[in-house]
Amino acid sequence: MTEKKIQGIHALENRLGEFLQENSIDCVILGYDQEELKVLLLKWKFEDIWSLPGGYIHKMEGMDQAAHRVLEERTGLTSIFLRQFYTFGSAGRNGEHRPEEMATMRRILEKIPMENKELDFGWFTKRFVTTGYFALVDLRRTDPNPDFLSESCEWWALDDVPQLLADHNEILEKALEQLRIHLNYLPIGISLLPQKFTMRALQKLYEAILARPLERSNFQRKMLALDILVRHEKQMTGAANKAPYLYSFDRSKYDTLVQKGIGFSF
Amino acid sequence: MTEKKIQGIHALENRLGEFLQENSIDCVILGYDQEELKVLLLKWKFEDIWSLPGGYIHKMEGMDQAAHRVLEERTGLTSIFLRQFYTFGSAGRNGEHRPEEMATMRRILEKIPMENKELDFGWFTKRFVTTGYFALVDLRRTDPNPDFLSESCEWWALDDVPQLLADHNEILEKALEQLRIHLNYLPIGISLLPQKFTMRALQKLYEAILARPLERSNFQRKMLALDILVRHEKQMTGAANKAPYLYSFDRSKYDTLVQKGIGFSF
Repeated sequence: MTEKKIQGIHALENRLGEFLQENSIDCVILGYDQEELKVLLLKWKFEDIWSLPGGYIHKMEGMDQAAHRVLEERTGLTSIFLRQFYTFGSAGRNGEHRPEEMATMRRILEKIPMENKELDFGWFTKRFVTTGYFALVDLRRTDPNPDFLSESCEWWALDDVPQLLADHNEILEKALEQLRIHLNYLPIGISLLPQKFTMRALQKLYEAILARPLERSNFQRKMLALDILVRHEKQMTGAANKAPYLYSFDRSKYDTLVQKGIGFSF
Repeated sequence: MTEKKIQGIHALENRLGEFLQENSIDCVILGYDQEELKVLLLKWKFEDIWSLPGGYIHKMEGMDQAAHRVLEERTGLTSIFLRQFYTFGSAGRNGEHRPEEMATMRRILEKIPMENKELDFGWFTKRFVTTGYFALVDLRRTDPNPDFLSESCEWWALDDVPQLLADHNEILEKALEQLRIHLNYLPIGISLLPQKFTMRALQKLYEAILARPLERSNFQRKMLALDILVRHEKQMTGAANKAPYLYSFDRSKYDTLVQKGIGFSF
């Protein structure tokens, strides 16, 4: 067996074995590219099923630690700043309420080549409480890879996201709702935009998150008032007077604002 | 046995029986009185142990529903708007890591008169993932009562809160941190202040939540700019010109602002 397959089996055993019985983690990894907000999804093997990268919490593992491990095991991504945003525990979160999905999962797991074929499906009939974590990443600097259970690992534009496993569409929606709230009190952009960007690009990012158009001069005025941007000289070309200014974030002012919060502060 | 004792046993059985094995709920109920923010704590019977009102999630129960049931069972409070704020899942959250606390809990449970003395302490050695819920209430309109396991149910000023069970002090701190963030994008006060109040009283509330003094004229200007306050006529007494204005919230504008959010909105 290849190293990758062995790792996959190890990951699967982990996921069926000694974890906190009903507690899982799901990660909403958002990236920004070409004026679109995108989310990282896994396609399961053999079937047309997409899901958020998720997994279970080991008994001796902290929840934050589990979130990092799950993300790394399933996508290879490390060193990502994950933030817990909500815990989903409605009574309907179990396999009994989703017979079709259970049957599909059983088919997938049976087809995966493994030495130990004795799979315990009991874990899947339980109700799961899952805690959502989200992250904002520069998708040009990340290179996700699918794990043993998955066929591919892809960035999907939010408008095109398909029907996901279980209640993952709802989890994604909640992550976006939390992100929109964050916009009210935290600066956003430093991990999503290139080092230098136009005011228009920054506005497009905010519009993508808020899912609505913003008024240009109002946006520019409020953003400049935060005093976290450095304006650079225009490059002198033939059409210099039409070229937009480029900005970058003042890292230290940006970080201070992350600490202090913005908005309705007294 | 009295009705109350029977209810208590029922509650205890619930808590030892069919719940999601490692999932619990803890409620941070905050009230405001005499310019102080207070938190509702339970004192356990027979020992000098205080804790947040908490309990377990039943297998067929949604998490939000469990939070309401737990709060009602332990304090008698109903119809309170509870908001989930964080899930605590560090690896240290189990009985093995807290031997003294376990011994104490065992002593308490053994002393409680019950027909079924066969208590299963296994549940207590497990690691618990607990989800925190918080609420803001008018403490003059609530009348909490302790349950079968508790001796009393009291409001504690935040500055005087004693060492609490397990990591409940940390859970309380996190609730306050979340509440401070909420101040940046939500109006607060309608459930905590009397119907009419002075600007000073409103400022004192914000100061109590933020745990720092605010500058009077700046606070007043920002608060009036929100356009959610109705100013009432001064009552004409001898010293009328010195009497402060009374305000009340414009309920419909307040609710709109709760929907829309305040602060750094574009």
